[in-house]
Amino acid sequence: MKLNKKLYLTSLENKISLKILKLKKESGSHSPSIHTLKEELPELEIKVDACFLSNPYATELYMEYFDKEIIQKNRLRDLLEFYPSQNSVIADLVSKSINVKSDKIFIGNGAIEIIQAIIHRFTKNKIVVNIPTFSSYYDFALDLVDVTFFKLKKENGYSLIIEEYINFINKIKPDTVVLINPNNPTGTYILKSDLIVILERLDFVENIIVDESFIHFAYEDIDFKEITISAMVEKYPNLYIVKSMSKDFGIAGIRAGYAIMHANKVSSLLKNGYLWNSNGLAEHFFRLYSDKIFILKYQKVRKKYIIETQKFLSDISNIPQIKTFPSSANFVLIELPENVSSEIITSILLIRYGIYVRNCDDKIGLEGNYLRIASRGIVENKLIFDSLFDLFS
Amino acid sequence: MKLNKKLYLTSLENKISLKILKLKKESGSHSPSIHTLKEELPELEIKVDACFLSNPYATELYMEYFDKEIIQKNRLRDLLEFYPSQNSVIADLVSKSINVKSDKIFIGNGAIEIIQAIIHRFTKNKIVVNIPTFSSYYDFALDLVDVTFFKLKKENGYSLIIEEYINFINKIKPDTVVLINPNNPTGTYILKSDLIVILERLDFVENIIVDESFIHFAYEDIDFKEITISAMVEKYPNLYIVKSMSKDFGIAGIRAGYAIMHANKVSSLLKNGYLWNSNGLAEHFFRLYSDKIFILKYQKVRKKYIIETQKFLSDISNIPQIKTFPSSANFVLIELPENVSSEIITSILLIRYGIYVRNCDDKIGLEGNYLRIASRGIVENKLIFDSLFDLFS
Repeated sequence: MKLNKKLYLTSLENKISLKILKLKKESGSHSPSIHTLKEELPELEIKVDACFLSNPYATELYMEYFDKEIIQKNRLRDLLEFYPSQNSVIADLVSKSINVKSDKIFIGNGAIEIIQAIIHRFTKNKIVVNIPTFSSYYDFALDLVDVTFFKLKKENGYSLIIEEYINFINKIKPDTVVLINPNNPTGTYILKSDLIVILERLDFVENIIVDESFIHFAYEDIDFKEITISAMVEKYPNLYIVKSMSKDFGIAGIRAGYAIMHANKVSSLLKNGYLWNSNGLAEHFFRLYSDKIFILKYQKVRKKYIIETQKFLSDISNIPQIKTFPSSANFVLIELPENVSSEIITSILLIRYGIYVRNCDDKIGLEGNYLRIASRGIVENKLIFDSLFDLFS
Repeated sequence: MKLNKKLYLTSLENKISLKILKLKKESGSHSPSIHTLKEELPELEIKVDACFLSNPYATELYMEYFDKEIIQKNRLRDLLEFYPSQNSVIADLVSKSINVKSDKIFIGNGAIEIIQAIIHRFTKNKIVVNIPTFSSYYDFALDLVDVTFFKLKKENGYSLIIEEYINFINKIKPDTVVLINPNNPTGTYILKSDLIVILERLDFVENIIVDESFIHFAYEDIDFKEITISAMVEKYPNLYIVKSMSKDFGIAGIRAGYAIMHANKVSSLLKNGYLWNSNGLAEHFFRLYSDKIFILKYQKVRKKYIIETQKFLSDISNIPQIKTFPSSANFVLIELPENVSSEIITSILLIRYGIYVRNCDDKIGLEGNYLRIASRGIVENKLIFDSLFDLFS
């Protein structure tokens, strides 16, 4: 009885909850930003943004560099006043960092612009998207494109079963498939060796998009070595690798991402667009990204964050009344007890504990009531854990 | 003889000039940025960027606000770390500023993204572009689209002759036409009343794009009242108004622009894309744009800049050996004496005087040798004038 009470909204909480719901409706396909929440609901005391999927230690590192290189050297006006360099100039910077030739690199105003660019330009007939997943991959399909879902099964922990998937694609014959690795919101991971099997066997698919936006949080060895299949672009001209910088580096506000794809595809995109799609801050970031000392420092905070994240996810998985799914990303998908609405728990966490989590009730392909919770810094993670423990144990 | 000598490069200058030429080739369809020049040619002492078409006083005003509201309040990390709001949320901010309903406003990552969005989505068959002009309007046309040029005539000072234009469009029957007002690089202006005649008589054209990116520098009365035809979108569902913020506010590095168009067109674009295409700084800028006190202060620096610009353009027009064209924008098109190469003069101005101007030898539709020179602050304008006077009088 005591437990159940905690899972209900008081009448005051209910009023605020209705306002949150309204804001969610107004913000379209995604959650309202924390700015919007703070502005529209000043009565809330938000302590942790556990919607936001990024490494806060990397943001700190970036801010240190930004302060040292831009603010202290009085270079801010230069970045804001003048036109940034064009796409191919910034691709040269990224090339130095990732050891891929610059003619295979396309710079995006965030990964989201790249997803849009690829799907609008190269997808002609049919796209297969594995669900549950990041909705833009199907929302962005143009009207004439058929969207087919490959449903990841709850009984497999929402993991991709390679053989099943390949058979499905062979039957459906789409011109585009999407593989997000690790997947969002499930955190499920496809081994690099499995991805290579998929690439080999799906050589008839015109466009294979592999989204590695969360891959910096995954690892296959005890040294946490970074994983990528970027070298595969040499062998597979149908492969596109999409990479957001917002997650690893915690800089969603500056909109920086890149893709690796066959040089002809890059030329095709640049031939009639994407001229000045980076801003001055993104260009400066990509300069840092090609700076070896910055990257060495980044690797340290990357490992620190992965270790803390794995500890946090393991702690949450031990809370009695909720179920978690093994995640190789920096977040965890949580299934709530039966008949407990994710909308209400999201409101309770926000109003009562100041913790903003992602209510997954709009995610198609999830069976049950789910929240997605991001790992943040160690202090914030403790607040998240304590709140969940208080509610569900 | 004395004059002629000045118009030749010394052998040392010639070496640097070849490097500049190489950089220009590498930077694609537009001039290399001043950053690239400074980085690749550290031997240059660049004093004035007269390529760059913006009001520097507005940049100063913006930087004051940025310092006060963001840097001093320690809000910078928030802007860089978190996702900005989505397109429609920012459209609400702009709506407050321009008195147009927000469902008719589309926010772009700079005007350049808007040009791309409109032409890629709505132009199906044939686009008519008036030349000389900003090249993206024809470069961005997709492969299947036929680009037809309407040639502005030198004998008319590159002005648009309304009757001729309407007859041409009636004959060609394109689905899209583009009118940049004032035009770039000519500075020529179409009166608001003439534009309304064009709208009335071209109601059969599916897409009429009016680019008002430079219109804040134009005026039709002695109070310098701002001009726009944005209200016409109510009456003409085929009208798109494109507006860059880079020029008026001098903030090209943050990439901010918007368009006004029929609400159905905005929905069509947002239905499958343009989700987070603004960055944190652009969102903050649009908040300023909807702030009445900021705009009052902006109007002051706008008028100051217009007055100085018109004085500067008039001074240049009196330099004996060059010809200028009347401009309602913040730059002037200069025709060099016959047989004087714009490439060489661009190098001489940069190497000898530290003044970076736009060599127009890649602009199709110009007959002769041309430079485009931007008006900057009063001190810089004097440097530009003195250099031109030294060379051409």
